[in-house]
Amino acid sequence: MKVVIIGAVAAGPKAASRLKRLVPDADITLVDQDELISYGGCGIPYFVGGDVSDEKELRSTSFHMVRDPYFFQEAKGVTTRIKTRAVSIDRKERLVHVEDVITGEKDALSYDKLVLATGSRPNILPIPGRDLKGVYAISDLHKAVAIKNDLAAGRVRSAVIIGGGAIGIEMAEGLADLWGVDTTIVEFMPQILPRIIGPDMAAMVQEHLKERGVKVHTQEAAKEFVGGGDGRVERVVTNRREIAADLVVMAAGVRPRSELARDAGLLVSPQGAIIVNQHMQTSDPDIYAAGDCVEINHLVTGRKFFAPLGSLANRQGRIVADNLAGIPSVFPGCVGSFIMKVFDVCVGSTGISLETALSEGFDAVEAKCVQSDRAHFFPTQALLFLNMVVDKRSRRVLGLQGLGKMGDGLLARINAACGLIERRASVDDFSTLELAYAPPFSTAVDVLNAVSNVADNLVSDRLKTVSIQDFMAWMEGRTDHPDWMALDLRHPKEAALLAERFPGRWIAMSYDKVRGDYQALPRGKTFILICNAGTRSYETQCFLRSVGIDSLVLPWGLNGIARLGAKWLI
Amino acid sequence: MKVVIIGAVAAGPKAASRLKRLVPDADITLVDQDELISYGGCGIPYFVGGDVSDEKELRSTSFHMVRDPYFFQEAKGVTTRIKTRAVSIDRKERLVHVEDVITGEKDALSYDKLVLATGSRPNILPIPGRDLKGVYAISDLHKAVAIKNDLAAGRVRSAVIIGGGAIGIEMAEGLADLWGVDTTIVEFMPQILPRIIGPDMAAMVQEHLKERGVKVHTQEAAKEFVGGGDGRVERVVTNRREIAADLVVMAAGVRPRSELARDAGLLVSPQGAIIVNQHMQTSDPDIYAAGDCVEINHLVTGRKFFAPLGSLANRQGRIVADNLAGIPSVFPGCVGSFIMKVFDVCVGSTGISLETALSEGFDAVEAKCVQSDRAHFFPTQALLFLNMVVDKRSRRVLGLQGLGKMGDGLLARINAACGLIERRASVDDFSTLELAYAPPFSTAVDVLNAVSNVADNLVSDRLKTVSIQDFMAWMEGRTDHPDWMALDLRHPKEAALLAERFPGRWIAMSYDKVRGDYQALPRGKTFILICNAGTRSYETQCFLRSVGIDSLVLPWGLNGIARLGAKWLI
Repeated sequence: MKVVIIGAVAAGPKAASRLKRLVPDADITLVDQDELISYGGCGIPYFVGGDVSDEKELRSTSFHMVRDPYFFQEAKGVTTRIKTRAVSIDRKERLVHVEDVITGEKDALSYDKLVLATGSRPNILPIPGRDLKGVYAISDLHKAVAIKNDLAAGRVRSAVIIGGGAIGIEMAEGLADLWGVDTTIVEFMPQILPRIIGPDMAAMVQEHLKERGVKVHTQEAAKEFVGGGDGRVERVVTNRREIAADLVVMAAGVRPRSELARDAGLLVSPQGAIIVNQHMQTSDPDIYAAGDCVEINHLVTGRKFFAPLGSLANRQGRIVADNLAGIPSVFPGCVGSFIMKVFDVCVGSTGISLETALSEGFDAVEAKCVQSDRAHFFPTQALLFLNMVVDKRSRRVLGLQGLGKMGDGLLARINAACGLIERRASVDDFSTLELAYAPPFSTAVDVLNAVSNVADNLVSDRLKTVSIQDFMAWMEGRTDHPDWMALDLRHPKEAALLAERFPGRWIAMSYDKVRGDYQALPRGKTFILICNAGTRSYETQCFLRSVGIDSLVLPWGLNGIARLGAKWLI
Repeated sequence: MKVVIIGAVAAGPKAASRLKRLVPDADITLVDQDELISYGGCGIPYFVGGDVSDEKELRSTSFHMVRDPYFFQEAKGVTTRIKTRAVSIDRKERLVHVEDVITGEKDALSYDKLVLATGSRPNILPIPGRDLKGVYAISDLHKAVAIKNDLAAGRVRSAVIIGGGAIGIEMAEGLADLWGVDTTIVEFMPQILPRIIGPDMAAMVQEHLKERGVKVHTQEAAKEFVGGGDGRVERVVTNRREIAADLVVMAAGVRPRSELARDAGLLVSPQGAIIVNQHMQTSDPDIYAAGDCVEINHLVTGRKFFAPLGSLANRQGRIVADNLAGIPSVFPGCVGSFIMKVFDVCVGSTGISLETALSEGFDAVEAKCVQSDRAHFFPTQALLFLNMVVDKRSRRVLGLQGLGKMGDGLLARINAACGLIERRASVDDFSTLELAYAPPFSTAVDVLNAVSNVADNLVSDRLKTVSIQDFMAWMEGRTDHPDWMALDLRHPKEAALLAERFPGRWIAMSYDKVRGDYQALPRGKTFILICNAGTRSYETQCFLRSVGIDSLVLPWGLNGIARLGAKWLI
């Protein structure tokens, strides 16, 4: 069996190595236009930021062998053709026409089976000045090395990142944290991490970036990159301001590299991703594709989507190898799981956000919960914020988003949800979901069960909430609700400050006094119930409803408000 | 609706509080023989060990209110009757006969619905001397306070824990770590944590306990507790030795408290657990039961079992409240998930161990994998060891066990598996399982996917392994295998020491040299393939098989052996 694999970063090398183990006499050739292959592209921000000192580390095994052509030949038994560009595919003759990128020399590789692992390329925004020195889009390891060289040479005092997605934020952290670069993120959408997490959590991340010195401008578009006499970028002009910048990184997403597939007549989606079935087989049964160049099933929305991630590329590469070896494995799709570090916090998600759920036509609501991630006495204890997106009609959980202290506590909840969301689990499945429990790791009612319980109360119309945005607008005087009154259920000493600061708007009545004293409350008001997390508020709401008093719970309580940088709270 | 709940530790208060929120006019009475109620019993080892300074912290809310009768009455609207023992149930008249434990005064509480949350009690082994001062079984908070008072009074220099289960090990850590008590665990079975994790992982935990100064004697039984003239325990006599002990803690498991149910004619299992349906309803439709006193469905074995855990008690308490309020929620059962801290490591499991799987008649095998829990360059990176137990015929995953550095990395993998094992997921489901990925949290092929891939290779008969026990016995000269030879695939410098130490038994050939040099290997041998983790070994096995050479992979490689305290390795 003669197999040619085009692309040697993630899916390609994985398919090659697994196939060689399954079929030891297979003749496998990996083709790549670069000489740097089989690297962890997701580590680039950590290489630029300094955690990784040498780019070789990004293409080394755990036992410190560099994954170069020697390694593939001798250790894996796989031939590589580096610095070799695949120019076209002749499906009839089963040939890949290639050329040497240095000499231009042409050649043709015959195949029985072909694998396309051509990856993705960054979107280059059509902004004047994009060709200036110091303006980068990270298309490969070479660009990362160039940025790091600029940093090491002391050429970068200020940087602008175009795009507040995960890569943009990771790059911003890398630049600001170790190198001390004055860093600004410019994001076109109204929030950072758009479509991944909701606006409340995005505002918390933005607040944390601000605390750590990274400026973020949302709803702002870069209009021009302006250079100096030496042809290097000096500043970025947006629709609102000018920002000094010795370095500009465009992190405005990526799109599939699929020209080769399209030119060969394979089916390609309108968005440019190669169309494959669950065996990762293209419209030509002898040609497979995997990694950033394909589209996959979204197991919540049912739509095809594009999910460029090294983790998925590796899983798909393995599926390709199985199928080439006659094992009919399938890649069913995914629900779009995500996690990232942002300085001292981490943020993650799985499934879809409320915004996406609504736009997909779900009757969706979002439950919010904040609680200690483990027993209150354990030293690493910290608050974990979760949002659960649920379809009200079916009670199906559509998504989960979270934010917490940097560590693996959030990962443990996101990972618990990934496989269940894929399997269409309901709020009730999540309420009783078994999770490993001991005080150093969790609480008896884990925060993931707790948010499911909140979701149950919400979809059952027992819990009535105010939106955090509406509450903030009211407190800041941007909207008027003459019937609203904040009822602070915390300890009277905790509540006193705000009750004094906002007379007539904010009153205090400790949680344990409400059953006895509720008749002393002003009449005709809708009470916005305030505590630290929302739990005392919900319990109070149940009681107040039973005596005919209207109320709305502030989800996440003041724990949430405190992380949004509300000036009126300080 | 008049509801009486007997037992006010975990399931009882949860059912009461949730029911009051669902049905605000319900008349709910919580009965308990103790005056200390609604506490986190799982925190007791941390109270004794000093992390928790005051027992009040174990019965406080996150907002620092003590959960006492005032709290239940005023904040929750639930009446409590503390220091009140439930003596009998008159199902015909719907009465619970109670007596005051101080005055002996008798009373009867009428109910429409009754909830039994009577919990469990520790097994008291029939060992002579068990009534001596200083010999404890932790049946309630009072015993924990008494032990801590002994410690604080300086009365304890040495302690013996009877039982190497989770509570025994947590208590041992608490005593040895802060108090510096010379601590010994005596376990009757051949390993600690029997039936929860396999012998290899148990040996690693035992080795770590030894490093941290806790002695462990397995296959050993306490025969007598011997006291001094003051009636205090002085030493423990086992079938093998005498051990000085100013403190003895019996941690030999617990059993359900179900006398009240049995005497009232409710169905109780032969093991003494109250029998309930998925609505947590007993054989009397007006009586529910929840928590440590009931038996539940094991969702892997299909058997009923007894799983006394605060986390499950809380979930079940909520289900009881739902059903009392007319919401037909169900508690489907569980798969037996577990995690614990042992000094600097953590160990966890979900589903069943290989030993249990084999005894249940599964055609089970165990796949082993060890790998970094996150990108090698991230500072908190550490090795995570996983075992996956799989049914060979159906490819169904039956269990997962793990050990790693203390932190939430293991929790993230155990939690990801709990819900899937419950849903009968296969090795293939786990291979492609989506997990959140970024370098600070995981690797592109997560260790959980990796162990699934190993399991796939194992059940497909591509991977052939030697058992760690057999390998250790051979290396230590306890068994003879004239046809075996260790083939060390690591870097020649790493392999040199052992090759020199064991001439004729241990030879070195770097992983990347095997394809070129395999013909130089001795003939007629079965090579035990050695690397650090097992991955290079598996790849080499695939190649050697293709050229007709027999081999067996050492799972976990030398990373595993190093944690078993092998003297020949040092």
